[in-house]
Amino acid sequence: MIGGKLEKKNNLEKIAKLIRYFILTSTTRAGSGHPSSSLSAVELMTALFFDDFFKFRVNEPDYVNNDRLIFSKGHASPLLYSLWAAAGAVTEDEILTLRKFGSKFEGHPTPFFPYSEAATGSLGQGLSVGVGVSINAKYIDKLPYYTYVLVGDSEMAEGSQWEAIQIASYYKLDNLVGILDVNRLGQRGQTMYGWDTVAYEKRISSFGWETIRIDGHDFKEISAAYKYALKVKGKPTMIIAKTIKGKGVSLIEDKDGWHGRPLPQDKLEKTLNELGSIDRDVKGIIAEPAQCEGNREKIKNYTGIDIGRDSMSTRKAYGIGLVNIFKKFSDIVVLDAEVSNSTYSEIFKEKFPDRFFEMYIAEQNMIGTAIGLSTRGKIPFVSTFAAFLTRAADQIRMSGYSNTNIKFIGSHSGVSIGEDGPSQMGLEDIALFRAQLNSVVLYPADAVSTEKLLERAAEHYGNVYIRTTRMDTPVIYNSTEDFKIGGSKVLKESRNDVATICAGGITLHEALKAYEELKKENILIRVIDIYSIKPIDEKVIIKAQEETGLIITVEDHYQGGGLGEAVKSASSEKSPVHILAVRKIPRSGKPYELLDFEEISSKAIINKVKEIKFKK
Amino acid sequence: MIGGKLEKKNNLEKIAKLIRYFILTSTTRAGSGHPSSSLSAVELMTALFFDDFFKFRVNEPDYVNNDRLIFSKGHASPLLYSLWAAAGAVTEDEILTLRKFGSKFEGHPTPFFPYSEAATGSLGQGLSVGVGVSINAKYIDKLPYYTYVLVGDSEMAEGSQWEAIQIASYYKLDNLVGILDVNRLGQRGQTMYGWDTVAYEKRISSFGWETIRIDGHDFKEISAAYKYALKVKGKPTMIIAKTIKGKGVSLIEDKDGWHGRPLPQDKLEKTLNELGSIDRDVKGIIAEPAQCEGNREKIKNYTGIDIGRDSMSTRKAYGIGLVNIFKKFSDIVVLDAEVSNSTYSEIFKEKFPDRFFEMYIAEQNMIGTAIGLSTRGKIPFVSTFAAFLTRAADQIRMSGYSNTNIKFIGSHSGVSIGEDGPSQMGLEDIALFRAQLNSVVLYPADAVSTEKLLERAAEHYGNVYIRTTRMDTPVIYNSTEDFKIGGSKVLKESRNDVATICAGGITLHEALKAYEELKKENILIRVIDIYSIKPIDEKVIIKAQEETGLIITVEDHYQGGGLGEAVKSASSEKSPVHILAVRKIPRSGKPYELLDFEEISSKAIINKVKEIKFKK
Repeated sequence: MIGGKLEKKNNLEKIAKLIRYFILTSTTRAGSGHPSSSLSAVELMTALFFDDFFKFRVNEPDYVNNDRLIFSKGHASPLLYSLWAAAGAVTEDEILTLRKFGSKFEGHPTPFFPYSEAATGSLGQGLSVGVGVSINAKYIDKLPYYTYVLVGDSEMAEGSQWEAIQIASYYKLDNLVGILDVNRLGQRGQTMYGWDTVAYEKRISSFGWETIRIDGHDFKEISAAYKYALKVKGKPTMIIAKTIKGKGVSLIEDKDGWHGRPLPQDKLEKTLNELGSIDRDVKGIIAEPAQCEGNREKIKNYTGIDIGRDSMSTRKAYGIGLVNIFKKFSDIVVLDAEVSNSTYSEIFKEKFPDRFFEMYIAEQNMIGTAIGLSTRGKIPFVSTFAAFLTRAADQIRMSGYSNTNIKFIGSHSGVSIGEDGPSQMGLEDIALFRAQLNSVVLYPADAVSTEKLLERAAEHYGNVYIRTTRMDTPVIYNSTEDFKIGGSKVLKESRNDVATICAGGITLHEALKAYEELKKENILIRVIDIYSIKPIDEKVIIKAQEETGLIITVEDHYQGGGLGEAVKSASSEKSPVHILAVRKIPRSGKPYELLDFEEISSKAIINKVKEIKFKK
Repeated sequence: MIGGKLEKKNNLEKIAKLIRYFILTSTTRAGSGHPSSSLSAVELMTALFFDDFFKFRVNEPDYVNNDRLIFSKGHASPLLYSLWAAAGAVTEDEILTLRKFGSKFEGHPTPFFPYSEAATGSLGQGLSVGVGVSINAKYIDKLPYYTYVLVGDSEMAEGSQWEAIQIASYYKLDNLVGILDVNRLGQRGQTMYGWDTVAYEKRISSFGWETIRIDGHDFKEISAAYKYALKVKGKPTMIIAKTIKGKGVSLIEDKDGWHGRPLPQDKLEKTLNELGSIDRDVKGIIAEPAQCEGNREKIKNYTGIDIGRDSMSTRKAYGIGLVNIFKKFSDIVVLDAEVSNSTYSEIFKEKFPDRFFEMYIAEQNMIGTAIGLSTRGKIPFVSTFAAFLTRAADQIRMSGYSNTNIKFIGSHSGVSIGEDGPSQMGLEDIALFRAQLNSVVLYPADAVSTEKLLERAAEHYGNVYIRTTRMDTPVIYNSTEDFKIGGSKVLKESRNDVATICAGGITLHEALKAYEELKKENILIRVIDIYSIKPIDEKVIIKAQEETGLIITVEDHYQGGGLGEAVKSASSEKSPVHILAVRKIPRSGKPYELLDFEEISSKAIINKVKEIKFKK
């Protein structure tokens, strides 16, 4: 087949029946799942796949010019699986393993299923992922493929959808098509708008999308809508479909109380009979995309920026480091949430404006977009204040299940940002990222190590969090030094250390000051830069316990889940571990006033050493 | 003055000048702050306060029928403080302490400033807080006061604003007035829509709000808009004001690059001269509200529901417990995010529908609404899946700075929810709440302790998180037992315990199973229910270390920041502490298959005891 057009039309009605059959049998077999939510979108997806719209090489799911489909309403996974079974990509036996332990057909789609673009199931996130995939196609890879996102009506209450809707319009993503399945019923009762598709249309079109309202079970209308959507230029399109939850099963059609309930076994046979005769051999053919490799812009040779030896904030070193590593990692894409002059991602933006995307004050969508970009092989570097990354904690959580390769940079960490006060202070960001299963958490203390760890982060496949500091800090490392994920640096060490200070970022400098002060009194302490909080250098911690008899950790962060707890978790029982962290509600004030107030300054370290060791 | 009408008109122009004077002098004195963002809204707020709209007893900020004002654009705090200075509530000397350590005039408003309703500064949250305050007025306290929210244009990119906008319309909050300050410039460059106030109007009105577009510096238009807004019935109103960032200071008016920058000292004098003569003695009089105590519905006497002794999920015990404690805590308000049949908040909803508010799938707004309710003296109990509470992590963070009294209930914790898979599993929720400074974190293991801890939570002032389980679990406690915040229960104990298992929730039951199995082999273990993860019972942990020589913690949660790290942080170096937690990407599967797979089941506990103690 030549790319782009089916030679022979598929029998949509037959395929739809088969898909309904698969949805019902797989969920009843599993004893759980969401058939009613899947059934309402059968015609919508059948037409997309099998009426010559969706273009995909079934045997080559990673082909660069495939169209992409995201199920934002991830609980309709039985429909997703059944579509691909109807296409012959997976077998009926396989989808009957739905929700079983070890099956790739999980309750909500994950990348274990090869035709999932991303893990979904936490509602309201799929459109953002679609934005990322569309931005990749239109602006980076310059490929003509489309991205389709199946959206539920209940999840339109999620603000993240409206962030995606705004940004998609702003970036003129005419290669993005949303399909809104308005089946009226949420998990427990009617949604806010019921079947009022005009209400959805007014809202979505007011944000600059093209909209088309249709009967979601009428193949003619559905196909006409896709045909129309593919002609729209300069804006994304939302097909708003009035549908019936549980369509095709009279027992449950449009009835409340059937969300997330499979048909019981004793009702299944009657229900399947109701579908009429089912041709189990029918196979839907999916049209193939045109052969196209895209037109990605080549990065011209350029001179990097020298970090130098002067005091510099690690946030600024981030911006410079980004520019420098781009040469080696041309898949980098940089996103920021309207604070690029504060996070210094603007340094990259100024040099490589085509690879920087302003995401405005919409952090949830920023991370969702990063997920989409990551699925298309890009390395997103996303930055905002550490405190505001908490705005996207659910998207961060879900990105882990999509096995993404996103680098998160949180600036303005800690009370040491000063006068702006607590709303701007990142004090729980280390905890946020340590809690993710496969994350790496890095906290460089100076500009040199920031640049190096940035490179380590880019080399590493997987999510990485880098915490940066607002104020200028001295350069303490030579440019020849090595830094690695899971590493640490012992900066001060002797045979007579009475204690070890484990710190990172701003408090590492406080620890070095404490060292100098204590040395004047002939008290020696070990100072370790825990620049890799996760994974953490267990060996150096246990060795320090054995050799110095006391560990004191210091962090500009709350205690729960932070650097101190990371050190203590890695420690043995060979010595006590004492945690200094922020324990009082932070206030406005000068940075050093606040470090003292929170007892995480050099003064506090000195006092704590003396208190524990010498009962001053 | 009789409530409601000023006897003598204020001189708005004079007051506006004075306010500009205060904004400029305080930020220049502080050397930081956001004068340009404050200046654009001067007329808007001056008219509100001093042209007989805002009703407030200045000497009684807590008076129940005061109007309420929330600065969603919290960085305009200099304007907030200057307004109250112009009203004579605070002095000029006081506001000149802006941003100084110890001052109640912080960089972004916090409750240390007595006229702040809530801490703001993380953009996009103020409208939700306003929704909570308005819901309180209209539906609970039945008071006629209005809630005004000053909103910035940049923050309209935040999805949370659109959640609030949808819900406010749905709940017909005609006592809520938003004032949108469209000054065109964000932190770095123009916003997405610039001065296109029609664009904002189309969008906001499409969600069912009344909208009025005005010149934000024309007192006639502004006052006419407030007058109009106060007559609107059945829907909230958004006044959309075209303004100039930095208005009144020609040096910075409408110029990019002045966000968050005070006028330098050497420019201040010229700038103040430009304002013209300033009457430093002018005082603005704020109209007083009518005397009104409201008409809160009395809770009629009712019979509680008996928890009983049969196996019951703790999530169901939550719903029942809520009904039972409402008798004693009539300030309770229950919110849920469209999963009330899963969280069982529906049990409360069915009995007390007027005190239950469906928040739909919009968790951010749900928490913001809870903040608003809390500021008005209510005790919000908010529930959704534990995993989805991460969607509101930033709102949870900010609630701490507002010193709220919110009880968060996260159901469906852990891999043990089974077949739905990881998107629905709460595995980082303990970490999320432990990371908050003053939170309490509870994890009851059975229905009886759930009900008791619910009561403890209601008695306690402050944020509390309660983690509940999906599956039914046996009742293991008598109804006469006591449970307290900071407590624990030693369920199995002897002089010959070879190890101690510290667990909570579902893994506590696994620990009890392990106990029975090991006992058959004459191996005795101590079993402790760590139902209070924060604060944690340090004494019982250290005692167990001393007496049994080994602690093994087990949790249905990731390790980072979880129960194990809480135990280890509280432990001494008297014995090792070994953490069992979820370490592999979770999958769909049966609950017990997953507990085994993740090595947190009774089998895993038994194996770990034997491995460490007896090198099996």
